[in-house]
Amino acid sequence: MSIVPASKWILNYRKGDLPSDALAGMIVAIMLVPQAMAYALLAGLPPQYGLYASILPLVAYAIFGSSRTLAVGPVAIVSLMVASALQGMNGIAEETYPAMALLLALMSGIILLAMGVLRLGFLMNYLSHPVISGFTSAAAIVIGLSQLRHLIGVSVPRSSSVIETVLSIVNSLDEVNPVAAMLGLGTVGFLLIWRRSFTRLAAIPNSVSGIMETLGKAGPLAAVISATLFVAAFELNDTAGIEIVGAIPAGLPGVTVPDITNLPWQDLIFAAFLISFVGFLESVSVAKALASKRRQKIEPNQELIGLGAANVAAAFTGGYPVTGGFSRSVVNFTAGAATPLASLVTAALIALTVVFLTPLFYYLPKAILAAVIVVAVATLVDLDTARQVWRYNKADAISLAGTFLAVLALGIEEGILAGAAISISLYLWRTSRPHMAIVGRIGETEHFRNINRHEVKTCSHVIALRVDESLYFANTSFLEEQMLQLIADKPEVGHIVLICNAVNFIDASALDSLDRLTTELHDARVLLHLAEVKGPVMDKLEGTRFLKDLKPGKIYLSTHEAMTDLNCV
Amino acid sequence: MSIVPASKWILNYRKGDLPSDALAGMIVAIMLVPQAMAYALLAGLPPQYGLYASILPLVAYAIFGSSRTLAVGPVAIVSLMVASALQGMNGIAEETYPAMALLLALMSGIILLAMGVLRLGFLMNYLSHPVISGFTSAAAIVIGLSQLRHLIGVSVPRSSSVIETVLSIVNSLDEVNPVAAMLGLGTVGFLLIWRRSFTRLAAIPNSVSGIMETLGKAGPLAAVISATLFVAAFELNDTAGIEIVGAIPAGLPGVTVPDITNLPWQDLIFAAFLISFVGFLESVSVAKALASKRRQKIEPNQELIGLGAANVAAAFTGGYPVTGGFSRSVVNFTAGAATPLASLVTAALIALTVVFLTPLFYYLPKAILAAVIVVAVATLVDLDTARQVWRYNKADAISLAGTFLAVLALGIEEGILAGAAISISLYLWRTSRPHMAIVGRIGETEHFRNINRHEVKTCSHVIALRVDESLYFANTSFLEEQMLQLIADKPEVGHIVLICNAVNFIDASALDSLDRLTTELHDARVLLHLAEVKGPVMDKLEGTRFLKDLKPGKIYLSTHEAMTDLNCV
Repeated sequence: MSIVPASKWILNYRKGDLPSDALAGMIVAIMLVPQAMAYALLAGLPPQYGLYASILPLVAYAIFGSSRTLAVGPVAIVSLMVASALQGMNGIAEETYPAMALLLALMSGIILLAMGVLRLGFLMNYLSHPVISGFTSAAAIVIGLSQLRHLIGVSVPRSSSVIETVLSIVNSLDEVNPVAAMLGLGTVGFLLIWRRSFTRLAAIPNSVSGIMETLGKAGPLAAVISATLFVAAFELNDTAGIEIVGAIPAGLPGVTVPDITNLPWQDLIFAAFLISFVGFLESVSVAKALASKRRQKIEPNQELIGLGAANVAAAFTGGYPVTGGFSRSVVNFTAGAATPLASLVTAALIALTVVFLTPLFYYLPKAILAAVIVVAVATLVDLDTARQVWRYNKADAISLAGTFLAVLALGIEEGILAGAAISISLYLWRTSRPHMAIVGRIGETEHFRNINRHEVKTCSHVIALRVDESLYFANTSFLEEQMLQLIADKPEVGHIVLICNAVNFIDASALDSLDRLTTELHDARVLLHLAEVKGPVMDKLEGTRFLKDLKPGKIYLSTHEAMTDLNCV
Repeated sequence: MSIVPASKWILNYRKGDLPSDALAGMIVAIMLVPQAMAYALLAGLPPQYGLYASILPLVAYAIFGSSRTLAVGPVAIVSLMVASALQGMNGIAEETYPAMALLLALMSGIILLAMGVLRLGFLMNYLSHPVISGFTSAAAIVIGLSQLRHLIGVSVPRSSSVIETVLSIVNSLDEVNPVAAMLGLGTVGFLLIWRRSFTRLAAIPNSVSGIMETLGKAGPLAAVISATLFVAAFELNDTAGIEIVGAIPAGLPGVTVPDITNLPWQDLIFAAFLISFVGFLESVSVAKALASKRRQKIEPNQELIGLGAANVAAAFTGGYPVTGGFSRSVVNFTAGAATPLASLVTAALIALTVVFLTPLFYYLPKAILAAVIVVAVATLVDLDTARQVWRYNKADAISLAGTFLAVLALGIEEGILAGAAISISLYLWRTSRPHMAIVGRIGETEHFRNINRHEVKTCSHVIALRVDESLYFANTSFLEEQMLQLIADKPEVGHIVLICNAVNFIDASALDSLDRLTTELHDARVLLHLAEVKGPVMDKLEGTRFLKDLKPGKIYLSTHEAMTDLNCV
């Protein structure tokens, strides 16, 4: 980990990369202008906050991040989480949302930086893929639904409950603004057709396929321009009640200092943590995927520092929480970005937009921005993973479905926590009821296998039991009960050999339990023996009371040795 | 599980058991009278609530419980938890504590019954022994400190913070009531000496050793009688300001109906859950220990029902939450209790006490009850386990110490939750960084062992890597990083054989990760192979994309087979 990883790519910059970096930066900027404004609205902020969050944060990441192609800026899910955090604060007027958003960016930045410095990137491993997939799909649906009111021009209150949102939209269907609905739903259709057409054209290998691909990304910009012109021409904001973006202050944002003295920042800590986690996860997963395609490396702790710096930069320049976005990063990568210079180009273009072009957005209808969001998040709904996981492993499928439903029923923050809790609980549950197999000898070999799966030889006075899990507090009772049941069912048994080749550790609770079990078995005139105890486990057992209590039970190197000694071969 | 397990011991009752059952019941009653009043005061309730909780709940448990020798009633730790729950309620006057305690008993009873019916007894396995040990020790210290003010006769406010309690006692040391302190501390000394003397006498094998043992348990009763007479003779309550128990209503409690309409029962749900959990744990651990000594069996789900019934009975007869107590159960057992008839005797004697003897307790000083509690809980501080666990396993020692400190610093409820979280986190942390070993061949055998522990043969173009843990979401990144690091360090390697004999399952996240790893290794011109994949794991892998992507990598039955095929033997 280096303090300024940027020195590496700046000092070794190859002139040949300049054209593709510049092109990629331009294409991302074309996507980013409408998305940034749209996501700011999604977060409950004025549209310029999205643009401000797309300038200095990109520069900060280019200096401190480790991915060469990650496109940082406002993203849909983090914007939704910001909205949810701000709405969750009681007694906060909507006018203070922007100030609170700055605070969130600052706190999130500090959290990410601290985690990077403390090398806590590994914590992210505790969210399983199915949980992330379920979370993302549900968040995409929540986002889509939250935009529906803009798409069809009805005014219903924001709500964190999906059911409430759906009900209030259904109840106000008679107030639909037909012109807004035409604009909004029409744009959704337009964007979908545009994307599909250019993707098909780009798939035909010829000299202009690169241009076609670029044009494919410009759909939102085309929609924005034509819709703005259309609304302006007929003054539809007055004549048809179309909601428009309105006046956006021109010029770069001044230096903003988050107000930690007057605002209840303590109430945002939890949300800031979750925003940091989710943002980091989205970012690092796309950065990893892209880096491995070019055999580059992502250092998770350096990523934390890069994203932390980006968020601090957002906090001081009128932005709101940012992270590496999935779709824009892929576009940046496929458009040929070779170095973070591409992001600097994007930042410069957004800065120029803010300085010169904001008056042009006056007549931009909010319905168009809603359409841009809906089309962007539609690709996040991930049915493929759900199907695969369902086929492969039901526990993972429960995690996925549980997270999905929890996000829809309880909300974004509660949902991801519930998902993590479900997946960890299922893991604990699984390891608390370990697979056990009574084994027997295969022919005249030294191999012993499950009596239910193989043709094996056993003898009546010895049970050789293999337990396929480390022994720890959650599964000791289960082991104890199973073994006592075994000898209760078979009174002729005088020896149990516990085969420990899959036991990677025995914790203190399990040791207590084994000790008690030894006594209980002695009382029932059954001797307990161990076999195939691993080196590290054996080292720990030396000198414990259990080893003394086990006698005259023995510890055998192999199952074969045990069975020979017990006259069972 | 039967609805009324009592039918078993009632229908088969042997007359020969009657004398020992009666004697054991009497001895427990002698212990219980002072303890019940003391624990009620500890819980913040008038002393008679402890006595009421020692009548019908014992009968209910005798009918529905599965242990033959468990002595149910008020216990120290649950009483402390009741006090903590009631003090934690804001805006509740101390006059409503008894009504709230009834509610807690009802809720706790319902929770226990529901868990029993739903067969959720296994949930208790998720609290590890070190966590329980740290919790018990810390709770004993909290209880002891909470009684200090009574022992030395100063009046300081109750507080859930240990530090606050200590500070306020230190600050009021100049207000110590010398007579109270003499009585209180004197009684502690008296009880300790009494117990030790009679235990020694009982250890001498002769015809009266049984009587000596019984007398040993009567120390508290002796202290209560002599101190009461002493205070009454000199009217020390008036002349020396000694706090006394005062008037206790005579007669059996009427039927009480917990008031769920006017009291904020919702705020008690969390506390009721924890009280149920902790009470069940204390009860079931002593019941198990005693049952196994006589080769009887405890059915955890039946225990839940027995304790649930006892608590519901407490709620309707003016009691408060009860459970099986550790020390009284041991006394009951060693005094020879053979069946729950002993508990029925105890209950009858307590009923008689309530009807006829309460006026005798008028002059009983509270300092004596405090001394009874302090001496009873002193045995709960468990340094032995701490020492053993520290030697055996540092992770368990951290769980124990963390729980201990969390109870002292944060409180009873927060402490046990923190303990559970610590032990589960440490387990996840451990499994997220699995032990891995590169293995080599031992001589000319088919055995392959860790190259760092054994004299083995390897070859340069193949790495045989054994991973000693199931693969799941928390450890996939670690595995991936380790393997990529391995091939980065050894460019001559062309094959990696992943030995899976300790892999008991592969979850969906790990499967994704293996799939990605295969591709990454292919890109680096390294082939991944698997060996010794267990049957159940292999069944799951059939038909997954990973198996296709693995090719031309193979799955070998044994490591030896793999190494032979790869020309490495």
